[in-house]
Amino acid sequence: MTKLRLDISMSLDGFVAGPDRTVEAPLGEGGMQLHEWVFGLATWMESHGVEGEGATGPDDDLIKEQIAQPGAVLMGRRMFSGGEGAWEDDPMANGWWGDSPPFHMSVFVLTHHAREPLVLGDTTFFFATDGVESALEQARAAAGEKDVAVAGGANVVQQCLRAGLLDELQVHIAPVLLGRGVRLFADGEQGKLEIMRVVGSPTVTHIKYRVVRA
Amino acid sequence: MTKLRLDISMSLDGFVAGPDRTVEAPLGEGGMQLHEWVFGLATWMESHGVEGEGATGPDDDLIKEQIAQPGAVLMGRRMFSGGEGAWEDDPMANGWWGDSPPFHMSVFVLTHHAREPLVLGDTTFFFATDGVESALEQARAAAGEKDVAVAGGANVVQQCLRAGLLDELQVHIAPVLLGRGVRLFADGEQGKLEIMRVVGSPTVTHIKYRVVRA
Repeated sequence: MTKLRLDISMSLDGFVAGPDRTVEAPLGEGGMQLHEWVFGLATWMESHGVEGEGATGPDDDLIKEQIAQPGAVLMGRRMFSGGEGAWEDDPMANGWWGDSPPFHMSVFVLTHHAREPLVLGDTTFFFATDGVESALEQARAAAGEKDVAVAGGANVVQQCLRAGLLDELQVHIAPVLLGRGVRLFADGEQGKLEIMRVVGSPTVTHIKYRVVRA
Repeated sequence: MTKLRLDISMSLDGFVAGPDRTVEAPLGEGGMQLHEWVFGLATWMESHGVEGEGATGPDDDLIKEQIAQPGAVLMGRRMFSGGEGAWEDDPMANGWWGDSPPFHMSVFVLTHHAREPLVLGDTTFFFATDGVESALEQARAAAGEKDVAVAGGANVVQQCLRAGLLDELQVHIAPVLLGRGVRLFADGEQGKLEIMRVVGSPTVTHIKYRVVRA
């Protein structure tokens, strides 16, 4: 079976977003600091349609790898649109991602609210309402022989971990203490990991783990 | 001025000890997993008086460096003896560390309860009752031209961070999720760090940071 992988930026004190997330600041107060390492990288800029000459090197190689591996993406409702309620009430019902989202493949959004698929550029969003296992099954079917990437947020990652679905976890540890916000790992969630690879750079530390099944 | 440095083992989810710490299990439930990487290393074994042939390599080199740098150690009362009350009531009043503690230098224990210095082997414990800044001043005087190491626990580290006293922070990230216990970083404590060095091994990831002053 293909793998379910996570790539996520986290502060050294364990946060993947700051507090007080709003439509204007979806990563919460201070949350952008977690992603500063990525914005100037050539591959990230290209995949996000940003003009200019980006940096290459080990960080950029990782982004290349991260983009090449998956054949489908799994994400939470809040990561798609910022809200949790019904689509009719959501001013961001078409998502954060603009007219040409950076995924360029099928994205399965875990939600309680059914909806027809949404095509934006070369990304198609499907809305999966039967829980995380069913959403993953659909994503696996779409991905074919490629892996599935879980994009976040923390809530979906925690569901995957708890259900024993996650195979690999690459954490990009940003050199910052956020102090509060959204933690990647749930209180009480225990587990063993196996270090697969460590890549260091001046701005971020990438540690790739295999999740050891109990 | 010489530096105040911290070396500490932490789980990927931010804990430096498990829950339910007792005299028998001072690291709490599951806490020993944070330190598994160290027990078989040649330099650690030698400094702790453990017989046998230990492993050498990058992890061991780090321990060598960690031992060579400081001229004095700063630690919390609980790390010294397990308790927080008055010495008269404490069955571990002479500490966890046995007749020949592994420090081989002066150790300053931050406590509310005054006490004469305690000599055990080539380690002398001094008991500092005037707060963390005064304890550090005493440790600096004892260390001379060498640095001071803060040994933990989390409470003392948090006091040092909050007071802007910590210069360098090396975290040994163990590939484990403890889920609960004692967190290294306090809720609400924010800060910027600068990556100085990353050393990876199959069992632990060492990231060394400079603390950026506001």
